[in-house]
Amino acid sequence: MAAEQEAVSNKRVILSNYVTGFPKESDMKITSGSIKLKVAEGSKDTVLLKNLYLSCDPYMRWRMSKLDRPSFVDSFHPGEPINGYGVAKVLDSTHPKYAKDDLVWGSTGWEEYSLVTAPQLLIKIQHTDVPLSYYTGILGMPGVTAYAGLYEVCSPKKGEYVYVSAASGAVGQLVGQFAKLAGCYVVGSAGSKEKMLDAVLLNMRLRGRIAVCGMISQYNLEKPEGVHNLEQLIGKRIRLEGFLAGDYYHLYPKFLELVIPAIREGKMVYVEDIAEGLENAPAALVGLFTGRNVGKQLVAVA
Amino acid sequence: MAAEQEAVSNKRVILSNYVTGFPKESDMKITSGSIKLKVAEGSKDTVLLKNLYLSCDPYMRWRMSKLDRPSFVDSFHPGEPINGYGVAKVLDSTHPKYAKDDLVWGSTGWEEYSLVTAPQLLIKIQHTDVPLSYYTGILGMPGVTAYAGLYEVCSPKKGEYVYVSAASGAVGQLVGQFAKLAGCYVVGSAGSKEKMLDAVLLNMRLRGRIAVCGMISQYNLEKPEGVHNLEQLIGKRIRLEGFLAGDYYHLYPKFLELVIPAIREGKMVYVEDIAEGLENAPAALVGLFTGRNVGKQLVAVA
Repeated sequence: MAAEQEAVSNKRVILSNYVTGFPKESDMKITSGSIKLKVAEGSKDTVLLKNLYLSCDPYMRWRMSKLDRPSFVDSFHPGEPINGYGVAKVLDSTHPKYAKDDLVWGSTGWEEYSLVTAPQLLIKIQHTDVPLSYYTGILGMPGVTAYAGLYEVCSPKKGEYVYVSAASGAVGQLVGQFAKLAGCYVVGSAGSKEKMLDAVLLNMRLRGRIAVCGMISQYNLEKPEGVHNLEQLIGKRIRLEGFLAGDYYHLYPKFLELVIPAIREGKMVYVEDIAEGLENAPAALVGLFTGRNVGKQLVAVA
Repeated sequence: MAAEQEAVSNKRVILSNYVTGFPKESDMKITSGSIKLKVAEGSKDTVLLKNLYLSCDPYMRWRMSKLDRPSFVDSFHPGEPINGYGVAKVLDSTHPKYAKDDLVWGSTGWEEYSLVTAPQLLIKIQHTDVPLSYYTGILGMPGVTAYAGLYEVCSPKKGEYVYVSAASGAVGQLVGQFAKLAGCYVVGSAGSKEKMLDAVLLNMRLRGRIAVCGMISQYNLEKPEGVHNLEQLIGKRIRLEGFLAGDYYHLYPKFLELVIPAIREGKMVYVEDIAEGLENAPAALVGLFTGRNVGKQLVAVA
């Protein structure tokens, strides 16, 4: 099919330079490349994706910096497309696990089409009666973060009090709902200028657990703000624990068993903030750090 | 026995005033009262102690402040004797569990003789072939703190690395030895002026555990110093957990089974810094916070 092998244009979001301080739209630029919509003959285990939705996540800020010490993420490369979580359709595949027209979510590029040579980072989407965009949020990494942070790291008991910071964000809005499902009382806050963690420590109860998946207010500071009330940990026997969703993907089937029916039955709701078009992706990403979004920020590519 | 009912003098260390900032010797004063060396007839469950050793512990600094919010300890009362952990001999008792000449350790007053009306806080000493002063340290609260913090809170595995801050203190010198017994590699530091915890966070390994039993460098500050590197918790999945020895006294028999033979066989050693006489107790307590002591600071009363 000669037509399929003709190159088409491929709009991309490129990191212009390493970022210090708050990221600006001008730290990224939109460029146009070209791509053949077919995996080249002889390329093993390669998948060609048409990206449908791209996820704007706070951890991406770390990748925009030149990281000078080992971290759980790598820096983006200036001059190359940003990458992150997304939802995509398989256009072509030489990997036995993926076939044309499969829908997947996972690691992809900020561009119209991505050639993925590590498709083991893609999860096949089984349930398509829910909005596909949900796989960047409630059914994707933020969903697993909320689920694992609450149920696995904090092990809540019925009747306990759960406080959620950044409660209107991609993860926060889910923690509150999971806590309700567990029979807990929920208090949340969002967009506060207070030293959140210090205030939380003063108000924690005995043997409280704090799961830490991110510290969005700190990512753009040359030096993070100090936390002054850690003494509270001792007398109250508080546990403060960092975690990453990536350590809990083995629970994804169990997670879906809980969440898919809850969505279908309206027991869980999810607020999204969808920017239309790759052109608007840089503004959407930058907006995370000024708190412009209400709910999960994502980009609809098409 | 008429002689027994004559009052004898009872030297005491009184808190003069609530303390702010670094405690000074002049925040305490030595006074002399009098006491009859017999529990008054009709006093139920009361024990009269002759104090032998008094323990100087960093947490006592909290009790010298006027605490304006609930805490796991109460403030001392100006004008009254300080109290804390000590080793004592029972002179008289109306409590069925304690008899004359029993040796005990636990909560007592900073004075020559104490009338204790809550003797349930006293533990009877069974092993007297080791120095009695050890029951303020390796065989007392600091010992249980080191044991519980390492074995119960951190659950070390053979071959792991253990870092001990304040490694020359009452607790720190034991953590290193317990870690060795568990087959771990040990690194320690003491007396550093660096922002200890921030440096530790940068150097922690993946899935490291930090047990926090105290923050001696912070107790005298109007506002504790900030900890800036808590972001490290996330990528490294670090757990930071506060705990109190008091939650682990049910393990004391098991603890003794490990430690008593280790002392007898010379497998564990313990460095003490003993001030002689109640007159020197205020200086000994104050010295904790300037790092004057090497090893466990205590006071020999007699």
